[in-house]
Parts: sequence; C-alpha cells; structure tokens
Amino acid sequence: MSMDMATTSKRSFLEIFKSKILTPRNLDYKLQFTGPTGANAIEAAVKLARKITKRTNVIAFTNGFHGCSLGALALTGNTTNRSSSTSQLIHVTRAAYAGYFGDSVDTADQLAALLDDPTSGYDPAAAFILEVIQGEGGLNTASSDWLQKIAALAERHDTLLIIDEIQAGCGRSGTFFSFEGMDVTPDIIVMSKGISGFGLPMSLVLLRPDLDCWLPSEHNGTFRGNNHAFVTARAAIETFWKDDKFETTLSERIDYLTQHLQGLAERSGFCIKGRGMMQGVDLRTPELAKRVQKNCFERNLVIETCGPYGEVLKLLPPLTINQIDLELGLERIEDALTEALQFQSGCPKTI
Amino acid sequence: MSMDMATTSKRSFLEIFKSKILTPRNLDYKLQFTGPTGANAIEAAVKLARKITKRTNVIAFTNGFHGCSLGALALTGNTTNRSSSTSQLIHVTRAAYAGYFGDSVDTADQLAALLDDPTSGYDPAAAFILEVIQGEGGLNTASSDWLQKIAALAERHDTLLIIDEIQAGCGRSGTFFSFEGMDVTPDIIVMSKGISGFGLPMSLVLLRPDLDCWLPSEHNGTFRGNNHAFVTARAAIETFWKDDKFETTLSERIDYLTQHLQGLAERSGFCIKGRGMMQGVDLRTPELAKRVQKNCFERNLVIETCGPYGEVLKLLPPLTINQIDLELGLERIEDALTEALQFQSGCPKTI
Amino acid sequence: MSMDMATTSKRSFLEIFKSKILTPRNLDYKLQFTGPTGANAIEAAVKLARKITKRTNVIAFTNGFHGCSLGALALTGNTTNRSSSTSQLIHVTRAAYAGYFGDSVDTADQLAALLDDPTSGYDPAAAFILEVIQGEGGLNTASSDWLQKIAALAERHDTLLIIDEIQAGCGRSGTFFSFEGMDVTPDIIVMSKGISGFGLPMSLVLLRPDLDCWLPSEHNGTFRGNNHAFVTARAAIETFWKDDKFETTLSERIDYLTQHLQGLAERSGFCIKGRGMMQGVDLRTPELAKRVQKNCFERNLVIETCGPYGEVLKLLPPLTINQIDLELGLERIEDALTEALQFQSGCPKTI
Amino acid sequence: MSMDMATTSKRSFLEIFKSKILTPRNLDYKLQFTGPTGANAIEAAVKLARKITKRTNVIAFTNGFHGCSLGALALTGNTTNRSSSTSQLIHVTRAAYAGYFGDSVDTADQLAALLDDPTSGYDPAAAFILEVIQGEGGLNTASSDWLQKIAALAERHDTLLIIDEIQAGCGRSGTFFSFEGMDVTPDIIVMSKGISGFGLPMSLVLLRPDLDCWLPSEHNGTFRGNNHAFVTARAAIETFWKDDKFETTLSERIDYLTQHLQGLAERSGFCIKGRGMMQGVDLRTPELAKRVQKNCFERNLVIETCGPYGEVLKLLPPLTINQIDLELGLERIEDALTEALQFQSGCPKTI
Repeated sequence: MSMDMATTSKRSFLEIFKSKILTPRNLDYKLQFTGPTGANAIEAAVKLARKITKRTNVIAFTNGFHGCSLGALALTGNTTNRSSSTSQLIHVTRAAYAGYFGDSVDTADQLAALLDDPTSGYDPAAAFILEVIQGEGGLNTASSDWLQKIAALAERHDTLLIIDEIQAGCGRSGTFFSFEGMDVTPDIIVMSKGISGFGLPMSLVLLRPDLDCWLPSEHNGTFRGNNHAFVTARAAIETFWKDDKFETTLSERIDYLTQHLQGLAERSGFCIKGRGMMQGVDLRTPELAKRVQKNCFERNLVIETCGPYGEVLKLLPPLTINQIDLELGLERIEDALTEALQFQSGCPKTI
Repeated sequence: MSMDMATTSKRSFLEIFKSKILTPRNLDYKLQFTGPTGANAIEAAVKLARKITKRTNVIAFTNGFHGCSLGALALTGNTTNRSSSTSQLIHVTRAAYAGYFGDSVDTADQLAALLDDPTSGYDPAAAFILEVIQGEGGLNTASSDWLQKIAALAERHDTLLIIDEIQAGCGRSGTFFSFEGMDVTPDIIVMSKGISGFGLPMSLVLLRPDLDCWLPSEHNGTFRGNNHAFVTARAAIETFWKDDKFETTLSERIDYLTQHLQGLAERSGFCIKGRGMMQGVDLRTPELAKRVQKNCFERNLVIETCGPYGEVLKLLPPLTINQIDLELGLERIEDALTEALQFQSGCPKTI
Repeated sequence: MSMDMATTSKRSFLEIFKSKILTPRNLDYKLQFTGPTGANAIEAAVKLARKITKRTNVIAFTNGFHGCSLGALALTGNTTNRSSSTSQLIHVTRAAYAGYFGDSVDTADQLAALLDDPTSGYDPAAAFILEVIQGEGGLNTASSDWLQKIAALAERHDTLLIIDEIQAGCGRSGTFFSFEGMDVTPDIIVMSKGISGFGLPMSLVLLRPDLDCWLPSEHNGTFRGNNHAFVTARAAIETFWKDDKFETTLSERIDYLTQHLQGLAERSGFCIKGRGMMQGVDLRTPELAKRVQKNCFERNLVIETCGPYGEVLKLLPPLTINQIDLELGLERIEDALTEALQFQSGCPKTI
Repeated sequence: MSMDMATTSKRSFLEIFKSKILTPRNLDYKLQFTGPTGANAIEAAVKLARKITKRTNVIAFTNGFHGCSLGALALTGNTTNRSSSTSQLIHVTRAAYAGYFGDSVDTADQLAALLDDPTSGYDPAAAFILEVIQGEGGLNTASSDWLQKIAALAERHDTLLIIDEIQAGCGRSGTFFSFEGMDVTPDIIVMSKGISGFGLPMSLVLLRPDLDCWLPSEHNGTFRGNNHAFVTARAAIETFWKDDKFETTLSERIDYLTQHLQGLAERSGFCIKGRGMMQGVDLRTPELAKRVQKNCFERNLVIETCGPYGEVLKLLPPLTINQIDLELGLERIEDALTEALQFQSGCPKTI
C-alpha cells in the first residue's frame, strides 16, 4: 500500500534516517515524500524554493541532469531530452559548472560577477541546483573550493542551494552524501535511485526545517509513501550505515578502482573522470565509447556511457561489489578497450 | 528491482493487458511506462502531443486535476495547487467543462466556436486533456454527447484527445475505462492509481500506435518499470477482468449505491454528483462537508471531500466492497449527515 | 525634437487635455507618455497593472486587437499576427467578448463564474483589457450593461480595468471616449491614432492618479514626447472639443450614416455592426468583402475590411467629413456592393 | 500624415538611403518600417528571426539595453527595467559581452564552447543580438576580433546576427554604422534615435533581402511611416553623408575628444570607456558620477550617466558640435570633476 498515510514502516524509516544518517553528520532536515521518482522530488524542491523566495529564476548548470517532467527538464542541459519542449522550458538561467572552461577559469567567480552586477541580465535566483558529481553530464566533479564559493554566493543573494543527490548520493561517492567533507550545508537535498536499497520507486526531499511552508495538499500525489520501499530503505540503512564497516570496505574498493583507472589512464593516455564508485574514462569519441560498450556486452558486462556525446565510459559498480568481481569487471573493461582500439587503428595493440 | 529493463513480469503484464483489456474492447494502443506516478505519465502524454503536433498550446478544462509537477500543474485548475507557480504555468488554454455553465449552455459548442474563429485568440492546440469524471473537481461528469463533440472537434483541428483515467479508470466508473460505451476513442490514455491492483506506484501511457515518435531515452527516468507492480497488476487483471463476473457484481453495487444516494437526495434536497463507484453529495458549503467528514471519522469511516470549495462529499468505496459493508458505510454516512444538519440547524432533525 | 523633456508644447497639451477633455467629463487621470505608438502604450499599461497587482495573468477578449509587440501581441486574438510568436505569448487568459456566443449567453456572467470559482483554472488577473468597439475584430460592441458587469467584476477581484481607446477613442464613437455615457470609469485608458489630430505618432496612457508607481526610467524610451504631435494635438482639442459644436455635427453625420446603413441592411439582408463613425456591413464571406473593397477602389474610395475572416466591410469616414462627401461615399459603397452581388449571382440585381 | 502608405517622401528616403548609405558600403538590405520607436523595431527584428529559424531562444548579452516592451525587455539586462516583468521575460539566454570577465577571458570562445556542447543547456538560438558599443550598459565596446568570432559562431549555428544600432549608429561611433571596418555583415540591423536627423520618432529594420518572410500585416501598426521624419531623414543623409566632409570633421572632433579624455585619465587615474562620439569616464561610484553630473548642470551642461550603477559619466556631444563648443564642454566637465573630487576628499585638489 503506497498512499500518503502515517504507517509504522514510514515511521521506522524516518527514525532510522534521522538517527543513522542525519544526526551523526550533524544535519537537521525535515523529510518530504513526493511522488516516488527523482523528477517528482526535483519539481517539489524547486517549487518550494520559488514559493519561499518569491522569485521565478533558478540557476542550473551546464551538463546538469535533473529529470524529464517540465520543471525538471528546464533544469536539464541535454538537447535530446529538451528538444521537444524547448519553448516551455523557462525561468532557468544556465551557469557554467566547475571547470567547464578549463582549470584557468573559476566559474564560481564568473557567476558571482554576473549576479553581483545589477545590469548583467542574470535575475536574482530562487535557487542554485547542482550535482556534486554530474552522472549524466560526463562525471564532472565540483571541488570543495568551488562548492563553498557557490554556497557563499547563494547565501549572499538569499538564494537557496539545492543539491541533487539522486545519482551521486546514498554512498555512491564513497560517503552517504556526495558533499560530505566539503564544508557545505545545502538548504534542500533531493534523493532517489538507491535510497530504497532495493530498486523500488522512492524519493526524498530534505528541507532545512524552517523552509517547510507547504500548504496542506499543495504539492500532492497518490504515491507519496511507498511502504514497501520504506521497509527496504530502513533495512538498507540498518545494514549498511549503522556503523562504519560498509563505508570502510567501500573506501577500499574505491581506492582499488581509482588506482586501476589511473594506471589505465597512464597506459592509454585517456583521462579519468568522476569520483568514488562513479568514475569513468573519457574516450573522446562516442564511436570508441560505443564500441567498448559493445565489447563489454559481449563479455557479459553491462556498462553505460555519458557525457555530451556519450564519449565517457561510465563505471557504476554495485556499492556492495566484492573485490574479485571488481577485478574481473575491470579486466573485462580493459580487454574491451584494447580490442576497440585495435579495431580503430586496424592493427593489434595493447593499451 | 524497478529499472527500465525487459523482464518477464513486464512481458506478462503487457500480454494480459493486451489480451484481457485492449483486445476485448477493440482497442489498439502501445504502452509506455514512464516514472510510476500519474504526474509523470501526464507529463509524457502532453510532451508527446506537443512534439507530434509541433504546437505548444494544450486545452484543459475547468475544475480539472492532472497532477503537481510543472507540466501537469499547468493543466490543473485548483488555485491552492497552482498558486506558488502561476507565473510558470504556461501554454495551457482553459475551456469550460461539460455543464459548467448549466444545462442550457453547450460548452462543447462554445469551444468549437472559439477554435473555429481564427481571431478568437484560442491558438491551435496540441491536445485536449480531460477526465470523463472529474474526481477532484467535484465529480462533474461528461456526457457521451459532449465527449463525442469534443472528440470530433479534436479530429477536425488535428488535435489529440488525451483522456486522463488516473482516478476514473480501472473500473471505478463501472467499466474498465470511464469512456467505455461513449463511442469515443482517445488518442492517448493516461492510467495510474488502481492499475497495480495493490497500491504500488505504477502508471501507464497508452498511445495510438502511430503516435510513438519518442527518441531513445528522450523521456527517461529510473523507475520506469516497477516489477513488483507489474506482478500485482497482472494478478489484478487476471482476477478481476478475465471474465465479466467482477464487472457484474460491481454493477450491482453501483446500482445499490446510486439508488441509495437518489433516495438521500430526495430526502435531503442535496444533489448527487458523479457516476459509478465515484459518486458524491453536493453539500453546498465546505463547512457542512467538513462536519460530515468529521462525523464519519468518528464512526470509523474515512471519507474525502472535493469540488471547488471542498463542498462535495466524495464516496470512493473499494471496488471489491461487499454488499454488507457498502450498506454499513452508507448508513454511517447518512447518520453523519443527519448529525451535521442537526448541529447546523441547532435542533434535532432527520434527513 | 521628441525627447522626453519638459517643453512648453507638452505643458500646453497637458493643460488643454485636462481642461477640455478630463474636467468636463469629471475624470481625473495622470498622463504618461510612452513611445508614441499604441503598442508601446499598451505595453506600459499592462506592465503597470502587473506591477501594481503582483499578478501576471491578464484577461483579454476574443477578437481583440491591441498591437504587435510581444506584450501587446499576447493580448491580440488574430492568428495571422500571433502565429510566428505563439510560444512566447503567455500570461494572458482569453474570455468571450460581449455577445460572442449570441444574445442568449451573457459572457460577463460566464467570466464571473470562472473567476469566482477557485478551481476553474482562471488565475486572479492583474487586469482586464478590452475595446468598447472592436475595430479589427469585426466592429463588435460592448453594451453598457455588459461593460458595467465587467467593471464590477474587476473591482470585486482587485483587477484593473484597462480600456483600449486606440481605435474607438478621440471621437470615433461619437463622443470623445467610447465608454462615455456607459457609467464606467476605467482604471487605465490607452489612446493613440487620432490623438495628435494630424496623423503624427503619439500615444497616451491615462492612469488613475494613485496607480502611478513607476520608478524613474523604469519604462523608458527615446521618443516619449513628440513635440510636433503635442502642438497638433493641442490644436485638435482646441478646434474640435472646446465646445459642443463639433460633437453636434458629428452626431448628425452618425445619425445619417446609421439610417443609411439600416436601410441598406433592410434592402440587402446583411447585418450592420459597430457604432458611431465606426460602422460596417457583415458581408458574411471575405470573398464578397474583398470584391466590394475592389469595386470601391475603382470608384476612388479606400475602404478596409475587418472581422475574423475579413468579412466585414468597415466604414471609418473622417470625423470631419461634410454631408455631401458622406452621401457620395455611401452611394459609391452601395454601388460597389450591388456590382459585387451581381457578379456573385451572375445576373444583374439591385440591392 | 504618418500612416503606412507609399508616399513620395518615403520613396525619396529609400532612394537616398540606398544610394548614399548602403551602396557605398557594399551593403544590401531591405528596409522595414515598424512603429517608429527603437523598441518596435527590436520587437520586429527578433520576431522575424524566430519566425525564420523556428527557434525561440535568442542570445543577448550582459549589460545590453534594447528597449522596454516585453520582447525587447527580455533582451535588456537592467534590473530596474526588468524587475516588474521578470516572470514574463522568457526565451532569452544571456551570454557574457566582450571583455566582461576581463582581458584574459575570451567570452566569444566561451559562448562557442557552450553552443557547441549539446548538453550545456544553451539551446540553439534564433539570433544573437548585440550593440557594438553598449550605450546604457557602461560604454563597453566589442573589438573586431570578438565581433568576427561571434559572427562566425552565428553562421556556424544557423543563427542570425542582429546588431542594435539604435544608440551607436548614424555616425555616433565615427562611421555611419558602428560595425564599419570590422569585417562583419549583420543579418539584421536595427536603427532609430538619430536616423531622422531631427529628433522625430523614426526607426528602421534592415533585413538581408532573403530574410523578408513577413505575411501581409503580420507585424502591423498605425505609425509605420512617419512622413515628416522621412523628409528630415532624407535631408540629414543628403547634408551629412553625401560626401566624406562630415565624416572627416567628425573624425577630427573624435580625435580631440579622445586625446583630451586620455589626458584626463592620466591625470585622474580613472578609466576611459567607449569609442567615437560616445565615450565616458568610469568614476567607479554612482555617488561621484551624480555629483559630477550635478556640477555640470550648474555649469549649464546636461550630461548622462550609464553603467551597472550609473557610475560612468557618458559624453554624447552632438555630432555636429564645433571645436569651440567641444573644448568648452570638456573644460566644464573637468571643472565639475575637480570640484566633485575636492568635495569627496574634503580638501581642494586639482585632477
């Protein structure tokens, strides 16, 4: 039963999320359950930010992906997703993400210049919305420094900072939240995907407590509480986050993955992107990425691509993967890449 | 596991939906699984209609309710839902629903006049979207005649007819689809709520086969296939819709409900609204409706209100209710109403 | 010199406009000079209404014409004008003009029903904007009764009433303002076209004094004061409106025109539309209207058509026309019509 | 008489504009007369670009000013102008103007990166619209190099290049068009202000001949031809642009102005901005600029300020100014500045 009612499974989830996730991290948020998809939660987060600030403009970033319903799509950069709706995707101003113009340009400073200038045409914003690791956009990452500048800029302009943790959250970055250790406290956090621990539809909006100004049933929906998912989400937190065992093992896997990929980078000349269990190889062309993907598939390995052209091979291993499977997987990827490069160059070659 | 993958449970659902629902009704649709909420499905339906027709305008109706994400909210009439987003709710033109201006005004003819006039300011529309019974809007119903006029008007203007079956579908009206027997074939149908048969998040977009012009991953999302829901949805169809037994019993319950409510109408002077297992009493003021609701709650009966001011008491009994429970429920409602009227008039009175 | 400066010609115009136009009619308005076109003035009027009310929605009427810049175009009904910009024409809700659905439907009552219903989807409006005689839309006219209902509705909903006098004002209706004698006081009035008395670019926004909340240079523009036009506008008011001679003669011409057209209506079976020196013949098809127009041109008479399809022949004689010219003109029109009908029927015929 | 009719004064203007302005510069444009204000012309230009390209997005630049009607306002950067309409100012993406982030950042390269990336969120644009010298935005100037990159980028993306010459055109930059000698040919040019040579309302849209796809009366208006202005505009072209005498003298004045301002810059430490007869002093604070303006006024000199905060003193001498008056004016400005600095520092000081 999934209606929006007070159930014991919901209460249990709320309790454990507070005691095992929020309190240990010194965070204080109210939890809102919207329809159980990431897009529903993004829509709610942005609507609330607009309601609170009485501003319509929201600043989203290059290569960001936030969902496909109209409000979320306006925030999303991808032309394929956007193209049939462009004339409706309004009230979003785009800013350059961390490192977008290369290392020599600080895009947070540029955004500050634009927002501080009353004639730049950048209207005061209800919110900044961003991913700390851009899962679809090519595994681009924000540094602590950049994120802190953005947070400070938001505060200075009475703009809310929304962090979209749909893909990078729930441990994917190595910590529960992808912004942990970066000395930034978002005003609103959106979670989904892995949160139920079991692939069930579930999403969450975490609100700074004083931001909850919803009227009764203002942002309603039938499936705002998926009780089955509450049960599995509770179990997942209990299993993985009650102590630091899981995080420690995860950290070892990530170290191994990172080292392996750095070796591959040195051998092959390709760049590694991303962070935690969310890393990838920038293969520069979508053709090569597609061929590696195909070669992986022939080796019984399903792998995605991402980035503007699908040119980045994207490794998203299960967070619970064991060392043997991880090694096996990386071996297959390297094989697949070697074969693809041989095909490309027309002669046998090992990376 | 809920990802968008080909699974046996998905295939089974597709097969039974086709063989037990579509084929017997002489309908032919492709099924699209969006994120598993009604709002996600509405967003997809309307986006597709705009993509196909290359028009941005969509015509929605007074008192309609279609969801709270930005694209769906633009179609929704309710001020409480709309108020914090009004400046973003664009590209929807509102038309008067069946009977909106009373019996003497044919609002379908009025809409035809507006759309046939090239200077009326009613732009050519990508789609009409409507509920055959307006669940939130006050249990207003569309007649066959009105619906046929709207369908003909849509066809004449190359506009797609989208029927939102989220609340009125899946048997709620007495037949599987609420438009059955009305001699109208929608271009797109949106289903959710009851479709999983078990309260699990699930939604469906039914497309006239030739309308499927989506690009790969153009309208994507993580939870586009909720396999648990596929299993229960399959079971629900198998249990309730494989033959006409369920529909026959349902029809008896509806007859009883209708007769009882007509009696109540005669005794009390209030109007009955709605159709099928989706009927209600127009109590004229929200105060009275709230008091009846409260009196019902004290009698262990949860009941909703709807309509512009919440002035309509809305009966949505389970479709599987047995005769004894139905009678018991109606008795309690009548008691609750009697008590509320006594309270209101200040003296004992029986309706 | 046309810059926005305090000049003696501007002051003279302001003085005479106040003493000869406003004061005798018991009206009190502040005058705003925007860019000297009707569209500029409409843009300013609507922008101010939105600023004051903090609402974005504006209600405009079927067949209305208010100009072709983006804000004015959103208010305009004509598809030819709108078509290349439809996706940008937002925040306008369309309502049916007086008599739009025939005599038996009171469209002011319908609009009241829509606005009084919090779930109709008609958002609270910053303003109603309307023409008392729709010059482009087919010479449709609003009755006193309808206009009073609309004005009362506006007041009840804290909505401003803007009357667009661009075509119907400056004496065209028989009185200086087209709403005179209808017991309605608009909050904002927009004037242009004839106001300079000499065909020079000039426009005016009249504001209820308490509505002027513009910031310095908030709605600026280079040509906000066309001094040449101030001089001719002053002369026009002095010549025509200092006493009632002009209005009396105008009234005689209008009586003659009306009688003549009523005769033509009786003889031909066509309907007469409009009011004052702004009347026309509904010829039912654009083909016939075009042919009459062509036949008039061959008789050295320039005449326009209007209405949804250009099916209405539109008589806009100079307000200063003498009786002989008026008779001559009407004779030529009748000749042109007779010839067109003969051509249409294929045999000689007199109307 | 100002209606949109073929008149001899219009024909004469068209002939001389072609023979004395376009042909000698090797340019070929069709001339469109819209309502006679800059805003009307901007609205037409942008509407046409959207119609031609079937794209809604238009790219405008930081600190740009293009007018106050809704379509033009969306392109304008200034918060004071924008603030009461922000929720309607849609379908414009803002890009950083030449030099916006300092000399080390090439904003044309940045825009190219954004537009070349299909997931940046920068939608394909109908047009780029820009001023070569930003009159209101602070006398920022575009270099040939930057402008050529922007023009090449526009061409590569099938985007039209619209140059707004309203303030910088008609000789203000030292040449008739402000982009002369920069090896760039705009697709559309918008002119107004000085074009009538006499302060009369007049504006012009110059279209690459193949771009004229207007339907009859699609972008109409009453005052599309101001005949009085045609006469004076013709005379102005004949007087000033039939040979190179005027331009030569202008060039001498500009040289003098530039030298003087460079001297002032060296003496005072303030930066000089702008080009041609459109230069200014960046006084860093609006307080100082206001005081200099006031001191100038007391010396019978009217002078404007511009820039994000009004911190730039803006010299716009008449193009016909004689050497003596120019020297006198500059002397007064320098006096006014000296006095203002003394006031600021609290003690006598000469710059």
